[in-house]
Amino acid sequence: MAGRRRHLLGIAGLDPAQIRAALDLAETYISLNRKGGPRDVLRGRTLVNLFFENSTRTRTSFELAGKRLGADIVNMSTSGSSVAKGETLLDTAMTLNAMHIDVLVVRHDQSGAAALLAQKLDAAVINAGDGTHEHPTQALLDAVTIRRHKGTLENLTVAICGDVLHSRVARSNILLLTTMGSRVRIIAPPTLIPAGVAALGVEVFTDMDAGLEGADIVMMLRLQKERMGRAFVPSAREYFRFYGLDAAKLARAKPDALVMHPGPMNRGVEIASAVADDLQHSVIQEQVEMGVAVRMAVLDLLTREARGNA
Amino acid sequence: MAGRRRHLLGIAGLDPAQIRAALDLAETYISLNRKGGPRDVLRGRTLVNLFFENSTRTRTSFELAGKRLGADIVNMSTSGSSVAKGETLLDTAMTLNAMHIDVLVVRHDQSGAAALLAQKLDAAVINAGDGTHEHPTQALLDAVTIRRHKGTLENLTVAICGDVLHSRVARSNILLLTTMGSRVRIIAPPTLIPAGVAALGVEVFTDMDAGLEGADIVMMLRLQKERMGRAFVPSAREYFRFYGLDAAKLARAKPDALVMHPGPMNRGVEIASAVADDLQHSVIQEQVEMGVAVRMAVLDLLTREARGNA
Amino acid sequence: MAGRRRHLLGIAGLDPAQIRAALDLAETYISLNRKGGPRDVLRGRTLVNLFFENSTRTRTSFELAGKRLGADIVNMSTSGSSVAKGETLLDTAMTLNAMHIDVLVVRHDQSGAAALLAQKLDAAVINAGDGTHEHPTQALLDAVTIRRHKGTLENLTVAICGDVLHSRVARSNILLLTTMGSRVRIIAPPTLIPAGVAALGVEVFTDMDAGLEGADIVMMLRLQKERMGRAFVPSAREYFRFYGLDAAKLARAKPDALVMHPGPMNRGVEIASAVADDLQHSVIQEQVEMGVAVRMAVLDLLTREARGNA
Repeated sequence: MAGRRRHLLGIAGLDPAQIRAALDLAETYISLNRKGGPRDVLRGRTLVNLFFENSTRTRTSFELAGKRLGADIVNMSTSGSSVAKGETLLDTAMTLNAMHIDVLVVRHDQSGAAALLAQKLDAAVINAGDGTHEHPTQALLDAVTIRRHKGTLENLTVAICGDVLHSRVARSNILLLTTMGSRVRIIAPPTLIPAGVAALGVEVFTDMDAGLEGADIVMMLRLQKERMGRAFVPSAREYFRFYGLDAAKLARAKPDALVMHPGPMNRGVEIASAVADDLQHSVIQEQVEMGVAVRMAVLDLLTREARGNA
Repeated sequence: MAGRRRHLLGIAGLDPAQIRAALDLAETYISLNRKGGPRDVLRGRTLVNLFFENSTRTRTSFELAGKRLGADIVNMSTSGSSVAKGETLLDTAMTLNAMHIDVLVVRHDQSGAAALLAQKLDAAVINAGDGTHEHPTQALLDAVTIRRHKGTLENLTVAICGDVLHSRVARSNILLLTTMGSRVRIIAPPTLIPAGVAALGVEVFTDMDAGLEGADIVMMLRLQKERMGRAFVPSAREYFRFYGLDAAKLARAKPDALVMHPGPMNRGVEIASAVADDLQHSVIQEQVEMGVAVRMAVLDLLTREARGNA
Repeated sequence: MAGRRRHLLGIAGLDPAQIRAALDLAETYISLNRKGGPRDVLRGRTLVNLFFENSTRTRTSFELAGKRLGADIVNMSTSGSSVAKGETLLDTAMTLNAMHIDVLVVRHDQSGAAALLAQKLDAAVINAGDGTHEHPTQALLDAVTIRRHKGTLENLTVAICGDVLHSRVARSNILLLTTMGSRVRIIAPPTLIPAGVAALGVEVFTDMDAGLEGADIVMMLRLQKERMGRAFVPSAREYFRFYGLDAAKLARAKPDALVMHPGPMNRGVEIASAVADDLQHSVIQEQVEMGVAVRMAVLDLLTREARGNA
């Protein structure tokens, strides 16, 4: 997908045609999933979910995607794994390689972990989130959701709001949306804006009303308290007052603006329940459905060459 | 199974014909399981096991039942799940719905959790235990076990003994057995009798010898120390003396009485090892076998309409 | 495999012809795994992985082996299981039996646990490690690795180095290699040599240079700090100095000596990274590949009779 190697390590490096191909195939799988029924695309192939960080939601989405394509799925998590016995990431990689697996889905708390594994593995590697770096399937599923509602990914104004500092979701979305010709604004408290983010071609706002003005898409991020360490952590109440999405703030965006959230939501912290559940704007549940279909598309695309029908 | 909606939330609401249909289909699966071999009834369908309380035994039974019918199974547990990240039960439900799953098996520590999920999900929901409310597949598997030995579920005297206060198993069994025309007695220390249980049409005993007198079925419950909180917890030794089933107490029941236990057993606390292992009376292992078959029957019945062959 | 009963509880009791049959079938599966594609040998059969000790590596290897043969796999671990609720090992066995499973793979911290389960279960039982007793599939995978490189298992000099005291891997390898006609030396600090090991027909060395002299195979063991309890635990640095395999010590072995390790490795403790990664000698990754194939062979062999094509 990113050229010669069959990995998906990030949005970086993908061109618009490659992104469109993934979204188009996802559309096919959306229809198939709604009809139900088994597929055999990956029958006899092995997918390993290697999660060094907990994520039931993402792991389940990949597990469903793989099973719907007929793959054998093995879940590995760090609790109780060889990692706890002192094994290095590279030894884990070599072990998986020796087992002749076909696809590795990996989530890791270190940026670059997926790329490191991709260098050592014969299997296709899919980055399911590495540190604060990228989470490309999330950006692809957001893109297919947007495209289904807006008909395009060009010339949209997308406001990404919240804990941008810790968000690989934000980073992958910025890369994808700017690649496809949309304008991205980020809105965050000063302490949660990553240094150098302007170099990615985004506009930076610390005032939410200003940032939301005229937006086509309002993409909320989860407040990742578990990553905040010693950084300034606002109170939930204070955070919600300034950066939580409520109806009043949403009124600044376009009347047909979409509201998105990668989940799981902290209701009343980064988003008001009334907004999250308002199906006039909110496509949050649809994002989950798109997630399974996008992952099926990526699994299909990345293994085509190995399956001999590229 | 309980009318228009394809859920199994409890025994409450089922009529004798519906119960008999489930037991009859379970008999078919008992035979098939003994012969072995794969089935394709649920091929291409997705079953999610969502367990908010640990239960390897019940989860494994559903997992085997689903796999024997050809379903794809995804296990989700709360440790490491989105729940730990602050997601509400309804958001979890909406997420599962968006993934187009076919069956949700749920265990939760709150009574009513399964019913809440059933309201929000397109999938069939099976209650695998919700708080102190119901555990309907346990009652169905107990029923099929009894029927195979006694030939009927009518006019039997069934003594349910032990920690009735915390037992959804007791509650579902009381509902099923009284619906089918049997007499139920409960036997428990005064502190472990739920208020208002007599309204369910049972006789209440605090003396075990009196309660077991002439019983056809002696159904022991597990002492659920983990649920007792601040309530009076008897010592294991004292509890066994008054409410543990030993040969002397069992002699009060009918000579051909069945001894049952939903497992896992605390040997020497609620039941003497010699009684648990006495195959003249004990059908405890058979209950486990029936469990897989009953769950196959329920999975089959609840999905028939969706599979287009109701 | 060990006679009338279809279990693999240890290497003890296997004769050379039985060992050769397993290794020969493993060779077939090595080729099939490299080509890929599904098999149906165990389609409709149920394999339960029952792990009372954590081992992602071994559990994953058995899970992949089972899935590649088409089996349904259910993973059970002790965290959150009935065991935590006070169930005995025999009750767990009886429960699994009632569920009509076909194969039980068990790892347990008590020597003899697998044999106890085999007495009670109708299923084939495979010992995936029991206390300090045996780990027979590890010995078989080591044997197939050696045979592929040396062409034989006879008349080789094999040095097993490190924490022999806590190693069921060492024990199974000693039994297999001496059965097949090779000479085994063990090399360990005095505190990590099991009493009576000489009775197994091995030579005992406490000096590593002397023990490695002229060896065909250098088999390193993992330093199992988690098992050491109150025994003397050397510092990693001191241990490596005397018993860690580095290039200088390896030079004492034959020029074409193989270096093996069951994994996961503590690099810099029992083995230098440079030696572990030197593919002139190291077959450590190949051992992992052999592991899946050997387990497929064992699963196939143990279930043949039950499948009616012995």
